[in-house]
Amino acid sequence: MREALIEATAGVATPALVVDGAAMERNIAAAAGFFAGTKAKLRPHFKAHKCTELMRHQIAAGSTVGVTCATAWEAEVLAASGFEDVLVANQVADPRALGWLVNAARHARITVCVDDVRHLELLDATGERFDVLVEINVGQDRSGLEPGSGLLPTLAATRGNLRFRGLQGYEGHAVLKADREERAGHVAAAAGILSNERSRLEDAGIAVELVSGGGTGTYDLAAEAGVLDEVQAGSYVLMDASYATLGLPFEQALFCRSTVVSRQGDRVVLDAGLKALSREYGLPQAEGIAFTSLADEHATGTTDLDLKVGDVVLLVPAHVDPTVNLHPALTVVAEDGSTERWPVDGRR
Amino acid sequence: MREALIEATAGVATPALVVDGAAMERNIAAAAGFFAGTKAKLRPHFKAHKCTELMRHQIAAGSTVGVTCATAWEAEVLAASGFEDVLVANQVADPRALGWLVNAARHARITVCVDDVRHLELLDATGERFDVLVEINVGQDRSGLEPGSGLLPTLAATRGNLRFRGLQGYEGHAVLKADREERAGHVAAAAGILSNERSRLEDAGIAVELVSGGGTGTYDLAAEAGVLDEVQAGSYVLMDASYATLGLPFEQALFCRSTVVSRQGDRVVLDAGLKALSREYGLPQAEGIAFTSLADEHATGTTDLDLKVGDVVLLVPAHVDPTVNLHPALTVVAEDGSTERWPVDGRR
Repeated sequence: MREALIEATAGVATPALVVDGAAMERNIAAAAGFFAGTKAKLRPHFKAHKCTELMRHQIAAGSTVGVTCATAWEAEVLAASGFEDVLVANQVADPRALGWLVNAARHARITVCVDDVRHLELLDATGERFDVLVEINVGQDRSGLEPGSGLLPTLAATRGNLRFRGLQGYEGHAVLKADREERAGHVAAAAGILSNERSRLEDAGIAVELVSGGGTGTYDLAAEAGVLDEVQAGSYVLMDASYATLGLPFEQALFCRSTVVSRQGDRVVLDAGLKALSREYGLPQAEGIAFTSLADEHATGTTDLDLKVGDVVLLVPAHVDPTVNLHPALTVVAEDGSTERWPVDGRR
Repeated sequence: MREALIEATAGVATPALVVDGAAMERNIAAAAGFFAGTKAKLRPHFKAHKCTELMRHQIAAGSTVGVTCATAWEAEVLAASGFEDVLVANQVADPRALGWLVNAARHARITVCVDDVRHLELLDATGERFDVLVEINVGQDRSGLEPGSGLLPTLAATRGNLRFRGLQGYEGHAVLKADREERAGHVAAAAGILSNERSRLEDAGIAVELVSGGGTGTYDLAAEAGVLDEVQAGSYVLMDASYATLGLPFEQALFCRSTVVSRQGDRVVLDAGLKALSREYGLPQAEGIAFTSLADEHATGTTDLDLKVGDVVLLVPAHVDPTVNLHPALTVVAEDGSTERWPVDGRR
């Protein structure tokens, strides 16, 4: 299969991201099939690939309730591209970013996360109508109110043009834990926290319509824990070397086409470095090559393979999200070997 | 000064790269002044910022002999932008990349590095005229012939449209060593190797017109070692937290404008993460904040400062080159507070 991908993309300059279209479609179908059988639905996360064409394939497969994104810029791109229900799974406070949210809200239903009264003031001051989720810290220790915070009812009160919809909790500390039981433990703890916070609000007479969270590493555990209404998985569609260690039912669909630019003894140098591959989560992988370093424009490793200057190697990125963000487009190879160029149009 | 930069860039969406224009001009003047007094001249490296407007300022200051870049794509951008003497300081083997070199050679004198007969074959097969430098491994252990290689005279022979100009050795293993004496030792070793290789060629009747190498961390040591004709420094113009530890006569000129998006207790979350800042060489720096992690869209740290949601913080990137590559443009602030937007037009 990898030889076929190399052949089909022979005209594409390296370094370049190449998608195995059939594997991508199988990943999409597997996720849609799973969420067809659960109460929680899928809200695919745009941040993983920032490609509206790919997102259209995900939505077309069904079992979804809208899309997730990480930034106001992404929300504007998604809304302008016709996606009608967009969740910004983070807080927004920059004036220009708030302006992008306003633009997005003219085309789509926009829901934004908050964890401070100031977020509500900033959103309301735009004069635009937004839905909000209050983010709860379920153990990741980044954004989000601490469980039991006295501020929760204040943030969940209706204010001006803003409508409270519910809660978000993202167990980012769990999604890449190697042991499934450990992931399950974190998911259960997060579900317990979100369930308590929901009860506190309902006891105070505040309706909670929606609880959102989850990720690729916990997609089934989070859905089955019974508290979430929607799961924000993104990496499942392309996968990477990190998620590949978790035994998920998704295939590697993203590769970086690279060229051997130097070979001296058993040392091989490829033309894909930090400007083509994130080294967050580690070095890229390729069968038969032991990579030792990633510099700005080069991956260096040792190999016994008969690789010569000009030969092509497909690399598996260690971390999909920041890797896709380094490229202007994906070259998608269909099963018949035909290719399409899909812009990474959510990249700034 | 930093307050003035924040004020001048109030309309710029975060995360965004902001350049202190006065500091940048002082760095350019300091480098031009140094190289005015040495035999070796400066060949500024485009990879550090990929911004042709910034490169024009560097060339205008004098003491330069052309420009350096890392990729064939950068060479095409530089040639199309009017730079007339471009060194590609790496090997090129991808067919599309060779096409970019051909385009570049229609506008500019293009010199390319080689370390294999195959590079000469590929370059010559384009039918375009190129100058070549043979790269020597001076200790970085990436590309480059091993010193004493029997292949050197073969690579230095004239072939078709190709003209041998000389040698390149890049002491990438030395440029960030904290101890100046250690850097000096590596530079002396590299100079010895390049001097020997030059002698081997001259003894065989092959003229060596040019020896190229060096970087920001070794710029003065490399120039004063007496072997190089030109120094390929790039980071000196914007600087970063890594080079700041070396005691060089250059100032921090590059910052990432970021917004506080969440504050819970002593924990602060900024909207600049891995998609805005490389964490190669470490976490970003900001006075009064101890950063603990960098996620896709967030920098998280602890602080005693009175920072609220919506406040702006200027971050010092740990590593300039891959950080600039994440942004579409630089906002340059002049001493009078006026701003210009300079596209990072060498980014793909």
